[in-house]
Amino acid sequence: MGAELKAAELRRFRAKVEYDGTDFFGFQIQAGQRTVQGEIERALEAVTGARTRVIGAGRTDRGVHARGQVFSFEGKWRHSLADLQRALNATLRADVAILELELAPEGFHPRFSALRRAYRYTILRRFWRSPLERRTAWHVAQELDVSRMVEASRCLVGTYDFSTFGRPPQGENAVRSVFGAEWKAKGSRLFFDIEANAFLYRMVRSIVGTLVLVGSGQVLPGEVESFLRARDRSLVRQVAPAYGLCLMRVDYAAREGV
Amino acid sequence: MGAELKAAELRRFRAKVEYDGTDFFGFQIQAGQRTVQGEIERALEAVTGARTRVIGAGRTDRGVHARGQVFSFEGKWRHSLADLQRALNATLRADVAILELELAPEGFHPRFSALRRAYRYTILRRFWRSPLERRTAWHVAQELDVSRMVEASRCLVGTYDFSTFGRPPQGENAVRSVFGAEWKAKGSRLFFDIEANAFLYRMVRSIVGTLVLVGSGQVLPGEVESFLRARDRSLVRQVAPAYGLCLMRVDYAAREGV
Repeated sequence: MGAELKAAELRRFRAKVEYDGTDFFGFQIQAGQRTVQGEIERALEAVTGARTRVIGAGRTDRGVHARGQVFSFEGKWRHSLADLQRALNATLRADVAILELELAPEGFHPRFSALRRAYRYTILRRFWRSPLERRTAWHVAQELDVSRMVEASRCLVGTYDFSTFGRPPQGENAVRSVFGAEWKAKGSRLFFDIEANAFLYRMVRSIVGTLVLVGSGQVLPGEVESFLRARDRSLVRQVAPAYGLCLMRVDYAAREGV
Repeated sequence: MGAELKAAELRRFRAKVEYDGTDFFGFQIQAGQRTVQGEIERALEAVTGARTRVIGAGRTDRGVHARGQVFSFEGKWRHSLADLQRALNATLRADVAILELELAPEGFHPRFSALRRAYRYTILRRFWRSPLERRTAWHVAQELDVSRMVEASRCLVGTYDFSTFGRPPQGENAVRSVFGAEWKAKGSRLFFDIEANAFLYRMVRSIVGTLVLVGSGQVLPGEVESFLRARDRSLVRQVAPAYGLCLMRVDYAAREGV
């Protein structure tokens, strides 16, 4: 980290970033909107003096948070990595922070090299809304039968066409491998931790919305499997709000581990 | 809760309130500033049609949060308590919510009837700041020796003149009884839970600021007891920021338990 980098040499960097998605129009750059990518590119230009393109491991929607989003960029920097990270964090506003920064391994691509993504969805189960958790947890006032939600989640683990729960990027199919999908109750909070090789657009929020309908008794646990098999997006009757979702981690092969 | 109240009868109510202190100038009403008390009084007037004075269990400073602040007010209401609570929560903005509402016991006063207050202070121990916890945790990048902080906290439990750590309200002495003062580490978070019959102005933040200096080695654990005995506010060299502090609970005698 402390090593000086060779001046004038173009290097590829890899970074891990945390952000509070509340005041962003998502990760991906969009004209006229405040986005995480846009803010990072602006900070990179301010710090390095050169316009720099950032590539993220994945897009997060408007309002979605991240504790471990990964991105890469190319640039020239003649001081230490720690200096670059410090300069970027001093430039970025309070709702974004670079947690790790290093030289990218040979051939690294934040999206294509990623083996696994982990998301956490947070639900607050109580009668009245919570001022302190309004930005990070979906307030669900109805009674939820968590054991039914756990039961319904089991069918999601495996390699399936998840078209019911989301849209793939143009030109890709909707087959994804879900490695784990678990509910954990902790006081009035309910966490849904889901890991997959990759996710479709709105996949986690569509799954959570559906599983909450299972918890409240409006959908039977066994129906979720038939929804999945049907590959029909109209079966999703509720999409959980963005602010309860957080991208926790993106995993790479051991030699490329962030 | 569901019972209808007799119309036109003036009753005293007791309520528990949660708030995100970020956008408030503290609890207590102040001309020209947005305060929690001011917002609640405005909601009460909007809902009941009458100007109503709110009495809080204690003031919280600008930026301090609460999960269990208690207040009382007098008013006339001819529908159910649940209806009043629902109407208030519909009127209040997203950063305040009434969690409990009931008729106050005979002779109840939110401040004078309180037996005990519990505060929690949250520290985030890691090198880089956290976007997601910036409103609720004090980011401390230095290494902290928690065992020294635990050791230094022990002398605070008991009945002492706490003048070193805070200012009493006009006309009161600074003697307070601290029932417990505990540090709990959980991942990168460090919680300080302190309970007392009552607190002086800035007392928790002055104690936490001092204990963090113990953790970082700038103050010896044994010095905290001598600071306490000296009753000299100039010995407090660091006051922890308001946004890490949260009023968790106010306790009353069992018959008056909120």
